[in-house]
Amino acid sequence: MYILVTNDDGIDSAGIHALVQAMRRIGDVVVVAPDRQQSAVGHALTVASPLRATPFHRDGEVFGYAINGTPADCVKLGVSTLLERRPDIVVSGINHGSNTSVNAIYSGTVSAATEGTLMGIPSMAVSLATFDHSADMSLAAEVAFQIASRLMDMGLPPGTLLNVNVPPVPREEFRGIRVTRQGHNAWDDGYDVRIDPQGRPYYWLTGEFTTVRELPDGDDHVVKNGYAAITPIHYELTNFAVLESLRSHPVLSEICVRDSNEGQA
Amino acid sequence: MYILVTNDDGIDSAGIHALVQAMRRIGDVVVVAPDRQQSAVGHALTVASPLRATPFHRDGEVFGYAINGTPADCVKLGVSTLLERRPDIVVSGINHGSNTSVNAIYSGTVSAATEGTLMGIPSMAVSLATFDHSADMSLAAEVAFQIASRLMDMGLPPGTLLNVNVPPVPREEFRGIRVTRQGHNAWDDGYDVRIDPQGRPYYWLTGEFTTVRELPDGDDHVVKNGYAAITPIHYELTNFAVLESLRSHPVLSEICVRDSNEGQA
Repeated sequence: MYILVTNDDGIDSAGIHALVQAMRRIGDVVVVAPDRQQSAVGHALTVASPLRATPFHRDGEVFGYAINGTPADCVKLGVSTLLERRPDIVVSGINHGSNTSVNAIYSGTVSAATEGTLMGIPSMAVSLATFDHSADMSLAAEVAFQIASRLMDMGLPPGTLLNVNVPPVPREEFRGIRVTRQGHNAWDDGYDVRIDPQGRPYYWLTGEFTTVRELPDGDDHVVKNGYAAITPIHYELTNFAVLESLRSHPVLSEICVRDSNEGQA
Repeated sequence: MYILVTNDDGIDSAGIHALVQAMRRIGDVVVVAPDRQQSAVGHALTVASPLRATPFHRDGEVFGYAINGTPADCVKLGVSTLLERRPDIVVSGINHGSNTSVNAIYSGTVSAATEGTLMGIPSMAVSLATFDHSADMSLAAEVAFQIASRLMDMGLPPGTLLNVNVPPVPREEFRGIRVTRQGHNAWDDGYDVRIDPQGRPYYWLTGEFTTVRELPDGDDHVVKNGYAAITPIHYELTNFAVLESLRSHPVLSEICVRDSNEGQA
């Protein structure tokens, strides 16, 4: 197995190091990762400037390529250009911090796995649900190993990836792995307004993650209860549940035309 | 009506100017937009540095706030902190370039409307399907007006926004507005490898948008045929179609546990 590993915390983070060690139990590992922290970059691509790929060393050997770009850039540049052969799977992480619920849409870790999926490669993202940078990565690495070693055999449909979140608990409190849906919780956030020495305001994002609606099989809820959560996600964004009602909506039908092809897949 | 307008091409772009003029026909407009081009930023948020809001002038008056951040930052900072009251709707655009199919996941224009939706405000993104920066924005502005003036009356469910794409055609060739699904087309892309004067490689993203699978009611296809496309999208990423099959998958069930709560909404 040939495994492309990336992340959004940067190539020198503890999370990617732990992930690489776990993936080496499965096959040959190549690392293409951002040269610095890229949290909350979403599915960004670098289009207005060129990318560089610099060998990054760790423990006296080449650990991988450091890229001056985003997680999605790393996968796209790696698979299309840098790697000698096409990876069998893409694994992104281990992220410091949960990518459950709405966090998935801001997540560079998830976007890297999405980019792998867009390129037709079975892909997964792995996150440890704590911001503590000294957190023990070994349980998350073991969960990543268990899932990644089965990723090619799962027969995921095209366009679907796995978003894996692991609880920050000791091994003996870990309750196992469950397949979940994306939760519906969100950030209650705002800005801390400060005044600079010239008297002008500046704004720091602050906030806390809050329970909006607890789903019994939502990823948040399951992780909070000591399980690792596997959520199959896709980038089909259409809300099919409202498509037909919008088409026949009295307000919209004033300005819309219809076509006999509508509703066909 | 109080309307927040933003974009990802930057506050000085032709597209946002045309959109503001159209929205002024509906109500009071406030602009909070990036101070520079932010294309392909995805749903990025600025977390590691503070934001600034600078008044931006146009035609001798204050046009809006220019923010040193992403489209999602603009909506979050605007709604939570800068604006004196909560906007009734958020309208993002007019983007230079199509946000159909997979483009939606890379799009700062769409992410701004998504952020409005996350904050519980009816929101839409508008894009003109051409990269020609001298393109006539008047048809797209008229379509934006027609839809935005009805946005509050549509009763969109929580979490759903409208992604509107307009064809770059003269008024007389325009065939009307249709409700569509997200298309399944994608980029065939790669990197142009160049060598710098020091002999080291650097990589420019290049590519062209290609037809992977033509859906008769897909946004791409409809826009190509001279219609404006309204796609209702959401940020519920779970692929429910595979959730149950993954739970009972022989390969995954070796390592997963199940719970009686699963499958409940």
